[in-house]
Amino acid sequence: MNIKPLADRVVIKMLEAEETTKSGIILAGTAKEKPQVAEVVAVGPGGVVDGKEVKMELEVGDRVIMSKYAGTEVKLDGEEYTILRQSDILAKVD
Amino acid sequence: MNIKPLADRVVIKMLEAEETTKSGIILAGTAKEKPQVAEVVAVGPGGVVDGKEVKMELEVGDRVIMSKYAGTEVKLDGEEYTILRQSDILAKVD
Amino acid sequence: MNIKPLADRVVIKMLEAEETTKSGIILAGTAKEKPQVAEVVAVGPGGVVDGKEVKMELEVGDRVIMSKYAGTEVKLDGEEYTILRQSDILAKVD
Amino acid sequence: MNIKPLADRVVIKMLEAEETTKSGIILAGTAKEKPQVAEVVAVGPGGVVDGKEVKMELEVGDRVIMSKYAGTEVKLDGEEYTILRQSDILAKVD
Amino acid sequence: MNIKPLADRVVIKMLEAEETTKSGIILAGTAKEKPQVAEVVAVGPGGVVDGKEVKMELEVGDRVIMSKYAGTEVKLDGEEYTILRQSDILAKVD
Amino acid sequence: MNIKPLADRVVIKMLEAEETTKSGIILAGTAKEKPQVAEVVAVGPGGVVDGKEVKMELEVGDRVIMSKYAGTEVKLDGEEYTILRQSDILAKVD
Amino acid sequence: MNIKPLADRVVIKMLEAEETTKSGIILAGTAKEKPQVAEVVAVGPGGVVDGKEVKMELEVGDRVIMSKYAGTEVKLDGEEYTILRQSDILAKVD
Repeated sequence: MNIKPLADRVVIKMLEAEETTKSGIILAGTAKEKPQVAEVVAVGPGGVVDGKEVKMELEVGDRVIMSKYAGTEVKLDGEEYTILRQSDILAKVD
Repeated sequence: MNIKPLADRVVIKMLEAEETTKSGIILAGTAKEKPQVAEVVAVGPGGVVDGKEVKMELEVGDRVIMSKYAGTEVKLDGEEYTILRQSDILAKVD
Repeated sequence: MNIKPLADRVVIKMLEAEETTKSGIILAGTAKEKPQVAEVVAVGPGGVVDGKEVKMELEVGDRVIMSKYAGTEVKLDGEEYTILRQSDILAKVD
Repeated sequence: MNIKPLADRVVIKMLEAEETTKSGIILAGTAKEKPQVAEVVAVGPGGVVDGKEVKMELEVGDRVIMSKYAGTEVKLDGEEYTILRQSDILAKVD
Repeated sequence: MNIKPLADRVVIKMLEAEETTKSGIILAGTAKEKPQVAEVVAVGPGGVVDGKEVKMELEVGDRVIMSKYAGTEVKLDGEEYTILRQSDILAKVD
Repeated sequence: MNIKPLADRVVIKMLEAEETTKSGIILAGTAKEKPQVAEVVAVGPGGVVDGKEVKMELEVGDRVIMSKYAGTEVKLDGEEYTILRQSDILAKVD
Repeated sequence: MNIKPLADRVVIKMLEAEETTKSGIILAGTAKEKPQVAEVVAVGPGGVVDGKEVKMELEVGDRVIMSKYAGTEVKLDGEEYTILRQSDILAKVD
């Protein structure tokens, strides 16, 4: 992994539907902006963001729920990732 | 329950119409964004959210009223839940 | 009454037109978002709301004027109530 | 007068066109949101409003200029009044 | 002059095109919201406005440039004036 | 030059296309809101602007890049100028 | 390079598609506002921006990911650059 998110951003990788089912989480099928289960692959340093101190609560490997259209998608070594702010992560799942 | 909301978020489960009636709460039928009675199933840690200290006032098991379209819906072990900020909860009912 | 508003919210009950007339208050008939006279039936605890200290100035039994579309309507034991922030209450009437 | 505005609100009564002319103030006829000359009939206590200390500068009896569509109209004992924030009052006239 | 602007507001009087030309200032003819040259005729007291201390930098008699649609127009003793915030004044001209 | 910008504003004069080319800066031709190269001709005093201390970093004679539609255009002694906030200046060029 | 970004801005140069591929980063082809890989060519001084202290975390030569439409494009010595705020840079890549 050679991507380092800035500030309060994290990089996440969407989990395949199969994995999603295995963990017992199924997304609401008809919701237009349906939530997403993803794995955290990189975490920014936090610090002062827009004048406010942000402490990173997430770690690489955490499984998280986010809203589908939050963040920016990038492809890295053929895999798709999403870069988004920690505040766009709704919950951790374990 | 294996979902842990982040920051000032809570996870709630909508109550069935029957339960709703039993508690004496009936939703206004014609209101387009009608309120919802729900039970709190998980509560985030609170703390500093967007630079402001947030103290969680809700506990697991609380029955609450919220606006229908607040938050994000997820399915967990076949049940639908909603993740939303504590500030989107209007009132507790007991 | 088994509804407890959170934070700086209050629960109010619209007064019937008759009562409204008795108190000498008549709403401007043609205004699209006409004000409402209501009675306060529950008051939240106030405290820190969105990072700002809010002191509740209203008490149960106060008669108040509000804008019609502020807040969220709920039905409780067959009666309609509105939950709204104290800052959406324009004035007290006595 | 039995209406007590909350926070930084004031209650004003529009002056008739005749009175307006007498004081030498004539509103710009074609302006869509034309200013209004009014008399202050009730003044809220001020204090902390939205986290900021507000000192009331207006007194009952002050003649003021406001924008037409600011505030909320109410009828009281057959007269029309407007409830609005002190910050929506542009100037005093004497 | 019997108009006293509140807070950080000033009252200005548009200068006639002739005067404008004399001072060497000509407005850009095709700009839709073209700037205006005006004379300050009354200055509010400044002080705490929306929680922030504002010091008035303008004096009666200053010639200023503003944007055309800022502020509210009033007629006073047959003359048109504009009431606007000091922060809507772009520059002084002398 | 008889124009004194207020607060954190500066007055700039667009450079002719020829001058622009000479300095090696060519604007992207198809961009709808294409940047502008301009020369600073007057600088406001800075100070507290909207409750925040602003220090002026620009000096008369600086060549700067701005966005085309920022600020307000005025004509002064037959020349067109733009008045805008220092924060709307993107970069200095030398 | 003769361009000095102000405040918390940086100047970046988009990397050619070939270079992008070489580093293993491929942009998501169908995303409407697809991210961009770019090289930082100039970094502003940071400091107090909009009342908040901003520390620059980027250095000349950093490779970064940004959103396509952030910032303002300029041409300098025949090359296209983008000027944008550091907070519009999502991540560093190495």
